[in-house]
Amino acid sequence: MATRTVDLRSDTVTKPTEAMRAAMATAEVDDDVFGADPTAVKLQSEVAKMMGKEAGLFVPSGTMGNLISVLVHCDVRGSEVILGNNSHIHIYENGGIATIGGVHPRPVKNNEDGTMDIDLIEDAIRDPRGELVYPTTRLICLENSHGNTGGRCLPVEYIDSVGELAKKHGLKLHIDGARIFNASVALGIPVDRLVQAADSVSVCLSKGIGAPVGSVIVGSETFITKARRLRKTLGGGMRQVGVICAAALVALQENLIKLEGDHKNAKVLAEGLNQIKGLRVNVAAVETNIIFFDIVEGSKISGEKLYKHLVERGVFVLLEGPSRMRIVLHHQISSSDVQYTLSCFQQAFSGLQEENGN
Amino acid sequence: MATRTVDLRSDTVTKPTEAMRAAMATAEVDDDVFGADPTAVKLQSEVAKMMGKEAGLFVPSGTMGNLISVLVHCDVRGSEVILGNNSHIHIYENGGIATIGGVHPRPVKNNEDGTMDIDLIEDAIRDPRGELVYPTTRLICLENSHGNTGGRCLPVEYIDSVGELAKKHGLKLHIDGARIFNASVALGIPVDRLVQAADSVSVCLSKGIGAPVGSVIVGSETFITKARRLRKTLGGGMRQVGVICAAALVALQENLIKLEGDHKNAKVLAEGLNQIKGLRVNVAAVETNIIFFDIVEGSKISGEKLYKHLVERGVFVLLEGPSRMRIVLHHQISSSDVQYTLSCFQQAFSGLQEENGN
Amino acid sequence: MATRTVDLRSDTVTKPTEAMRAAMATAEVDDDVFGADPTAVKLQSEVAKMMGKEAGLFVPSGTMGNLISVLVHCDVRGSEVILGNNSHIHIYENGGIATIGGVHPRPVKNNEDGTMDIDLIEDAIRDPRGELVYPTTRLICLENSHGNTGGRCLPVEYIDSVGELAKKHGLKLHIDGARIFNASVALGIPVDRLVQAADSVSVCLSKGIGAPVGSVIVGSETFITKARRLRKTLGGGMRQVGVICAAALVALQENLIKLEGDHKNAKVLAEGLNQIKGLRVNVAAVETNIIFFDIVEGSKISGEKLYKHLVERGVFVLLEGPSRMRIVLHHQISSSDVQYTLSCFQQAFSGLQEENGN
Amino acid sequence: MATRTVDLRSDTVTKPTEAMRAAMATAEVDDDVFGADPTAVKLQSEVAKMMGKEAGLFVPSGTMGNLISVLVHCDVRGSEVILGNNSHIHIYENGGIATIGGVHPRPVKNNEDGTMDIDLIEDAIRDPRGELVYPTTRLICLENSHGNTGGRCLPVEYIDSVGELAKKHGLKLHIDGARIFNASVALGIPVDRLVQAADSVSVCLSKGIGAPVGSVIVGSETFITKARRLRKTLGGGMRQVGVICAAALVALQENLIKLEGDHKNAKVLAEGLNQIKGLRVNVAAVETNIIFFDIVEGSKISGEKLYKHLVERGVFVLLEGPSRMRIVLHHQISSSDVQYTLSCFQQAFSGLQEENGN
Repeated sequence: MATRTVDLRSDTVTKPTEAMRAAMATAEVDDDVFGADPTAVKLQSEVAKMMGKEAGLFVPSGTMGNLISVLVHCDVRGSEVILGNNSHIHIYENGGIATIGGVHPRPVKNNEDGTMDIDLIEDAIRDPRGELVYPTTRLICLENSHGNTGGRCLPVEYIDSVGELAKKHGLKLHIDGARIFNASVALGIPVDRLVQAADSVSVCLSKGIGAPVGSVIVGSETFITKARRLRKTLGGGMRQVGVICAAALVALQENLIKLEGDHKNAKVLAEGLNQIKGLRVNVAAVETNIIFFDIVEGSKISGEKLYKHLVERGVFVLLEGPSRMRIVLHHQISSSDVQYTLSCFQQAFSGLQEENGN
Repeated sequence: MATRTVDLRSDTVTKPTEAMRAAMATAEVDDDVFGADPTAVKLQSEVAKMMGKEAGLFVPSGTMGNLISVLVHCDVRGSEVILGNNSHIHIYENGGIATIGGVHPRPVKNNEDGTMDIDLIEDAIRDPRGELVYPTTRLICLENSHGNTGGRCLPVEYIDSVGELAKKHGLKLHIDGARIFNASVALGIPVDRLVQAADSVSVCLSKGIGAPVGSVIVGSETFITKARRLRKTLGGGMRQVGVICAAALVALQENLIKLEGDHKNAKVLAEGLNQIKGLRVNVAAVETNIIFFDIVEGSKISGEKLYKHLVERGVFVLLEGPSRMRIVLHHQISSSDVQYTLSCFQQAFSGLQEENGN
Repeated sequence: MATRTVDLRSDTVTKPTEAMRAAMATAEVDDDVFGADPTAVKLQSEVAKMMGKEAGLFVPSGTMGNLISVLVHCDVRGSEVILGNNSHIHIYENGGIATIGGVHPRPVKNNEDGTMDIDLIEDAIRDPRGELVYPTTRLICLENSHGNTGGRCLPVEYIDSVGELAKKHGLKLHIDGARIFNASVALGIPVDRLVQAADSVSVCLSKGIGAPVGSVIVGSETFITKARRLRKTLGGGMRQVGVICAAALVALQENLIKLEGDHKNAKVLAEGLNQIKGLRVNVAAVETNIIFFDIVEGSKISGEKLYKHLVERGVFVLLEGPSRMRIVLHHQISSSDVQYTLSCFQQAFSGLQEENGN
Repeated sequence: MATRTVDLRSDTVTKPTEAMRAAMATAEVDDDVFGADPTAVKLQSEVAKMMGKEAGLFVPSGTMGNLISVLVHCDVRGSEVILGNNSHIHIYENGGIATIGGVHPRPVKNNEDGTMDIDLIEDAIRDPRGELVYPTTRLICLENSHGNTGGRCLPVEYIDSVGELAKKHGLKLHIDGARIFNASVALGIPVDRLVQAADSVSVCLSKGIGAPVGSVIVGSETFITKARRLRKTLGGGMRQVGVICAAALVALQENLIKLEGDHKNAKVLAEGLNQIKGLRVNVAAVETNIIFFDIVEGSKISGEKLYKHLVERGVFVLLEGPSRMRIVLHHQISSSDVQYTLSCFQQAFSGLQEENGN
């Protein structure tokens, strides 16, 4: 049994801090189904302001945030959305935009940096003259930072270009900003500038920000009015929700400033792992708090064996494939945790060499 | 400006108590998207046990509880559900079972006591021989207590009969138990006995029970496994959700025993209102914590005027029509609040007579 | 084995006449998916003109005509349609508007004459102020003549009133006019006047009109443009469809004038059946070509036995329940067929008396 | 005005022959909504037999054939289908499987020969362990011949391999066989062998086969029973449909043997076009009756100008992009038409040189 736990599976695993819990215990609340909860109102308007948008809406999860956003922009039957073939919405949200919302996804190839070529996006937009056999393109979705490619950041110029393309074709632009603050910090671009071209953004507060529950979607007043109704339809309308919004408000204050540290920890860890013979990390690709890495071919240790070795030492990572792993840093991982983690990895491979040496 | 506030609009308006807030501040939590939050697990298993079912699942709202339940039972395209034409699911949930779930509702007339005639239910079940042009009946939904008919309780014998009918035709039975505890207390029937015939029940914890947020759905292990996945699809999966489940656990302990008092208060209030010349209350129909009443025709005071009179004195009710009002009792309404409310009503009508006397 | 066949199951069973077949063999055709088939264009514009609407669209069936119409009017997610609880759309079309289209049906009680009380319709229209929990009412559907109540006709004043109500609330009005020509003939009101208040009508050509295949929906140019696209989505776009449209054009010319005769035959048959001791027909309710009738309680012959007796003599009816039958007249049933049918029924009951007499 | 018309836009533009029209005029028919039309029954069983499947169902279009097939295999909410990113279903059917059927498409890259790499297909199949966030893969779709890549044929070994993969993972395999007869003829493989691995096939009769209207889907009895009901839901159930099935039966007899000639004509035309300086055709890729070709960069004639030149001479092609065209051969295009077409093209480019020469 390990005496120390270092949970690197995701930035969703953080526990609420004392300050968050205190805030929950004293939050001013009311029935928010009718928009009356003052703490929810405060959180929503604060996040909207940070994002430079008119209004915000608290939702139980990032998945609901994306689902509502896509469905509001695509509220007419026969809509199509262009999105990355490796995006969270396409891969990890149960296909809800189609299976629940009846929206047709038109995936475009994601590059290794999380972008889609602008030419490919434009090619995928349906020529309205052919509308007899085509669904109607109504929305483009970006994801920033892009989780499935290791937390890579979309540059602001790229987003602006996609925004212009969308405008040119009368489309909307939604950003899945589950980790938009990580992107903002890594790029050194204010978050409102980063999402300036977007009609809507979903922002997760229970990832790097560390709140126990919830996301906020932001956009125009009109967008949020429609979103509020759809939230009710999906069952995401909650009563005295201020108790959890209070924690999120504290989380924003406490942890936004810690993201830079998470990124530094990720860099240190990535470099350390890459120096281990038997592991390969694309260190340059570690732009934020996520590290994907591989056990090199021919290594004597399997992913599963390495995973077990780590678990026995209290280090939890995600096994993404037979020889591929994912690590995510967050505010409850210290520099010391990073060093400890590295030593556990080193031990696995040196131990292995010893074994091999026998 | 009123010095006192008596909020009788709904039993959803209660504020979390000190004990609930303390529980939130100390709750043991973990990432519940993967079923790991111990407080959520505890709440779910406790409610499941109370209901006599195998398993439970915490959801953000009663609407999501009903939506998931209907969609799990009707997971094959072309399904039909038989439900009351005056039920919450049919009237107040945005038609989500059809607009989000593609399930065809087949409403049957609700009687004044919230039941549907069993003959009419049986008539509505589709003969499978005609299946070429018929959707497939898969589910019957009941609601207990029945909100839109004033919180009337479905007797256990009635529910059992519907359950037998369902079984006979190979259908499932879902109970919208948003206020099932009120029904149980009013009927003097243990809640597990009351829902014995049901395959699933959604139980609201943020109504009479007084929790700030959430409902629990209960059913078989298989049902809950499917429900968990659909909860994720809809975006109802939350991370360290134990913080709100903790409040719900306290709420169950604190307020279940107070429901009887709420019902007594409702009875006193209903009788008092009925004695006011100008108001008409069906006192016999007040079985739980809800009172519907009418301003009698020919009365000089309009619903709107009466409503305003009450608001000025800090008494909040729901205006359901030009001369129809709804009041809901809950644990934060005391006997003294009831007397104060009655006096405000009396004043409105006696003041009126004075005015008329001028 | 019967030497004569009288098929009274439905007016959908008619066979194409020589003239229809000749027209099919010589029809000028082209690829109609792109709107180029001249015979389809001719049929569509002819039916549109008869109905007093801007444009028409040929579809393979009345079910597709209704489905497209409802879905075009309700093209925004979260729509609700008010329709009769005994209407063809609600009962006999697989619930497709919900299961395929995600439209929420709000059934209102059909009276015995096929109408819904206008007060009940108005009550069912959702108050837009409550839109957070209500789907949006967008459409009212009527059915004329009304099949499930025995082909009763909605009077033009009634339709006009529903049309005014729809307009007042910003709703659309669709008429399921599968047998609208029967209603027009029976009421003595030109068909364009009869559907004047409607935004769309679906007209079946393979019922009383006798075409082998197809319906036409009519409405504004905008409506038909949307309908054409949705027809393609559903798979109802056909290539050289003129071959069947040609038959429909002939059918309109040949059989429209025969509907009056069908109604007379129905009346004669209904009266004759009603004179048979053991049968009960509401003769006054036989307004067009449909007869529902019952074997009176206490009769010694069961529905099934009677049905078998008829089949043996080549007379085919629909058995609607243990002691309820339906007969539908059409242009391939002559006065002589009516007399023959009556004699078969009489024989069944007199034979019965003889048997009883033994 | 051209004195001659050569319509090469598609193989859907053929007109019914005299023999087809005669068959329509004499077809034995009945009400097929209840499966009673003998000519429909004959066509369905004949096509099923040709395909080596248990049963068949006539549908108004290939789009409905594919839509029904995908929806029957994916009848449980939350299903995903793997299909080519350049397939007809994904690109040209209005996204109906998602917008009407709520099925989540998971497109995989189509190679230039219409295949998808089997590794990529396997990668796209969802690991059932992750089912909390994944839709359930239920179906793989192939298209043979593959229209959007120029009528390329999938080899039987490839189809078998995909079939094995499907079986291994418990998935179904559907083949969009709109032009499966072209593939069979070109590959020299009997059509039943070619689709042996498939659970369902949709076969278009109004493309190369030349029938005026309709497709047939084939599969197991169970599949067809479900398909029949869904056809009714979508509105594809037609009454005396034998009139068009009769034409299709003749078309199969007349034109199946002509496909080889169409392919030869395509080859001749492709080679001829490729010899024109200014055009580029991948002649090797012309395996069946479709030719895609490009105006080479730097040519003085634009696509639009060339198109106009051809139209003036009665030659109709499809303009697919500014300098890309599509031609489809069919049984109503003779060798002489091919020569005439070639001469019109040659004239356009030589005329151009003359113009340039001035």
